[in-house]
Parts: sequence; structure tokens; C-alpha cells
Amino acid sequence: MNDKAFKARLQEIQSDRNSGSAELARRCLEIIAESSLWNDSESTTELLQKLDVRISQLVRSRPSMVIVANLFNIFQESIRNISHLPPAEARKKCADSASQTIKLSISSTAQTADNTAALIGRNKTVFTHSYSSTVLQSFALLAKKGLKVIISESRPLCEGYRLAEKLSQLNIPTTLITDAQSGLFVSKADMVLVGADAILQDFSFLNKAGTYLAALSAYDNKIPFYVCSEKYKQIRSEGETPKLEAMNHDELNAPDLPFVTIENIYFEITPAKLITGWINEDKVVKINPN
Amino acid sequence: MNDKAFKARLQEIQSDRNSGSAELARRCLEIIAESSLWNDSESTTELLQKLDVRISQLVRSRPSMVIVANLFNIFQESIRNISHLPPAEARKKCADSASQTIKLSISSTAQTADNTAALIGRNKTVFTHSYSSTVLQSFALLAKKGLKVIISESRPLCEGYRLAEKLSQLNIPTTLITDAQSGLFVSKADMVLVGADAILQDFSFLNKAGTYLAALSAYDNKIPFYVCSEKYKQIRSEGETPKLEAMNHDELNAPDLPFVTIENIYFEITPAKLITGWINEDKVVKINPN
Repeated sequence: MNDKAFKARLQEIQSDRNSGSAELARRCLEIIAESSLWNDSESTTELLQKLDVRISQLVRSRPSMVIVANLFNIFQESIRNISHLPPAEARKKCADSASQTIKLSISSTAQTADNTAALIGRNKTVFTHSYSSTVLQSFALLAKKGLKVIISESRPLCEGYRLAEKLSQLNIPTTLITDAQSGLFVSKADMVLVGADAILQDFSFLNKAGTYLAALSAYDNKIPFYVCSEKYKQIRSEGETPKLEAMNHDELNAPDLPFVTIENIYFEITPAKLITGWINEDKVVKINPN
Repeated sequence: MNDKAFKARLQEIQSDRNSGSAELARRCLEIIAESSLWNDSESTTELLQKLDVRISQLVRSRPSMVIVANLFNIFQESIRNISHLPPAEARKKCADSASQTIKLSISSTAQTADNTAALIGRNKTVFTHSYSSTVLQSFALLAKKGLKVIISESRPLCEGYRLAEKLSQLNIPTTLITDAQSGLFVSKADMVLVGADAILQDFSFLNKAGTYLAALSAYDNKIPFYVCSEKYKQIRSEGETPKLEAMNHDELNAPDLPFVTIENIYFEITPAKLITGWINEDKVVKINPN
């Protein structure tokens, strides 16, 4: 993959507003797999340096999505001792390792979805916000088990509509509301369930703006609030807070007026005190009593 | 005003999504003033009966807006003893009384705005949600006193944009955000200030959906939360809760999908426990400590 093609793919990752962070991280690994195979470096050292530069660029492109950096750490660990290999073998080893890391991520997401579906159980109404592929997978497992879903639209680009489409295809009865109605509808659900873009050391987590409001409403109405996320989204170092990505304010489609500044911050942190539990690929970590 | 013309005006009131409830109540009184003057009843009894029927229809057209019923109660009290008057005099008395009631309402709103501006003070940043003419009047009084405003858009029809336009004309620095970002921005304000469509007996109040979320966020961030509203919006009878109006789901402009129900409830109740104080035309009623 030449620099021009890479730049185009990097741009796609940066401007993607539809995919969950695990999906995006796996696409980043695919880009690195292709970058390894189609690489004209004359030495393995040069190959590894070039990949490092691209990995850094991919990680920096989505600073709120910790899983990108975490999966690349696993990938880099797996190719740590290959500098002695001839370039052709090194290229193949890099591509294989990237594929292995993708598989690891897919199975973590699937296991997290299994654990989430088991926790939800039959005949429940679940409120969710934004689009999480883990949440969607767990809903799919409950499609014939009496699940009902309430979704907020998730302005500005309304990922909630995309989730509603998927649930419609699964024949799951779904209620679609504006974000402003979250306070009215959280109390009608048996639980609130959301995905995460990053889990912080103290179990606070990063997710699409609006999540904190749903959590406040759940807490006030004594509705359990769960976050489901594989452990690859956990931030390892203490005190580290990922950057809250802001996007172009044109996405709001609001009037352009003198003296008026439009803000479009995509992510926010929901504090641990509002969370009942964190469902990951191993278990349900209880954070607060129901 | 004949029945056809009245029906058209009633329809306008019912479908108005822009005006605050005090504005709408005053327009209802204007309709009754005109209905009084242009009325072909042969007796005063018939005139009063006809007006009663129209008043009931206007009150029922906006069940969440208590001020409509309350101002009509004042109007009806002021014409209680006119059945002995000849029709021509009665018509004039009704129209005059309606105008008097409109003036009363205008001066209450202005006095409430004065008290609100005094409470806010100089160089403050205020977060607000939805469109309230009382809030706007108080902001106008502080336009040259260092006021900054943060507004959420207030989906589905985004009355926040209309407020932003008015503040832009007043040269007031304003930040405009999605409703989902309320949790991120309430904490940047010195206080949250909203209007009300109805004040309940226990000081809970009815306002546009999204208000409860802003109140939860203010409470969690220890930001004072004030509601400004003239006393004519207070519900007199204990335990009475106004209907939460739901509007056409087409307003969301969301995709129409099988198994997916779109909800568009306009109003919600914010509980008294989240409110710092209620600013009315007389004073600031302290509800909870700051």
C-alpha cells in the first residue's frame, strides 16, 4: 500500500461517524496487514519503521478510541522479535499477526455480547444510546426472546437511526426518541445498556455525548445502568483520560449567526458512581449496587 | 368572528410550536376579544354561552399550558356579573376585560424578567433549554452586562435556534449545542435558567422535554438551577398534573421502519428536589439550598 492509498484509508478512519470503536480498530489492523504485504522496503528494519509510523498516525486519528492503541500494542508485542527475519517472511508474519489480533478482537466482542445477553435475559425492555456493535450483537441474541428496545437518536448524525434499522431487520420492537426525551423514557426500561469507547482505571468510561444524561436519569429512577465493553478498551495507565474528540460544527446543520459559536463535542465521561456494572468478555464487574 | 374563522385561529394555536405558553395564552385572549366584538348573538346570555364554548375549546387545545386556563379564569371572573347588560355593552365589556387580562399577563412577564435579570447579575454564563419569552426578556436586560448564554437546540423543531437568532441580534455571545451535549456544557455555566409551561403545587414544573436532563446535570455538578415563571402558570388544585402533549412523530424526520415506533412527547416534569428556586413576579421562592 503506497503512501497515497494509506492517506486515503487514514482519512476514511478519521471521518467515520458510523462504526463502533472495535470495528474501527479492526479496520486499522487490516490497513496495517495490507501495508505489510504490499511494502517495498529493502530491509526488515525499514519495514518495521514504516509500519510504526503508520500505526502512530492511525492511533492519533481517533484519540478517544483507546482500543485502537490497545490492539496495536498486542500486535506490536507479537512482532517484537522478528527483526532478524528476511523482509519477505517479516511481511508475512506482520500480516498474520494483524489478522490474529483482529480475530482476538472479534471473539472478545462476541464473548462480551454473550455475557451481556445472558445478563439481560428474557422479556426485557432495554434503553440504549448511540451505536455500539457489542450492544447490537447482544440484542441480536435476544431477538426471539421478547426483547424490546428504546433508542435515542444521538445527534448530530443520528447513529440511533442506524441501530433502529438493524433492530427493525431483526423484528425487534423498538421505540425511537429524540435525545431530549431520554429522561422520559429511561424510566420505562428495565435497564440502560451502552457500549464504550474507553474504560478508565476507576471504571468511569468514555462514550458518545448523551450517555452521561441517560446514566443520570437511570440513577435518579433506580434503573440499573450497564456498560458492555471488551477489556481491550480499558486504559492501562492511571489518571490517563483520552481526548474528547470534537467534530466539525457543520454536522449540526444549525444556522450560522454572528456572536453564536456551535460546539460539537462527540464524547463525554460517565462517572463510575452512576454505573451498576461493566460487562466484559470474562464476567460482570459489579461497580455499584443496583 | 364566525365559526369558520374561529376554527382557523384555534388550529393555529394548536399547531404553534414556536411561541411560549404566555404568548399563546395572550393570543387566545385576543381571539376571545374579537369573538366578543364580532358576535351576532341576540341576547347577552347567548353571547356568554358562545364565548364559554370557545374558551373551553382554546383551553383544551393546549392541555400542557396551564396559563391558558388560568388567564381565562381571571377573565371569566371579571365578567361574572354582566348578564344583566344589553348585548352591545356586554360585548364591549368582554373585549375590554380580555384586553385588561392581556395587559396583566404582559406586566407579570416583564416583572418576572426584571427579577430574573437581578438574580443573574453581571458577567455570568447561563445555560438554558428550549424557548421561553421570559428567559429571553431577562437576557435582553443583561445584553450589555457581560452575559454569555449556552443553548441546547431542543429537538425536534429546535426552538434553540430561534433563541440563538434573538441573542445574536442582541450581540450576546452564545454557544449552541445538541441536546445530547447538555451534560458536557451545564458544568461550564454559572447557573441553569429555564421557563415553565406549568408550576405544580409542590414546585415541580412542566417544561419542554430535555429540561429534566439539564436539571439532573446541574444537580450533579452543583450548579444552581432556576425556573422563572409568572404565578399565572401555577396549578391551583393539589395533585393535578397537566397532560404531557405528544406531537406528530413526523417532526423528528426519522426513518419510517417496520417494528419501530417513533415517540414525540413534548413536555416533561422536573421534580422540585432538583430546583434551587422559582423566580416569579413577586420574588425568588427558594426551594432547595444552592
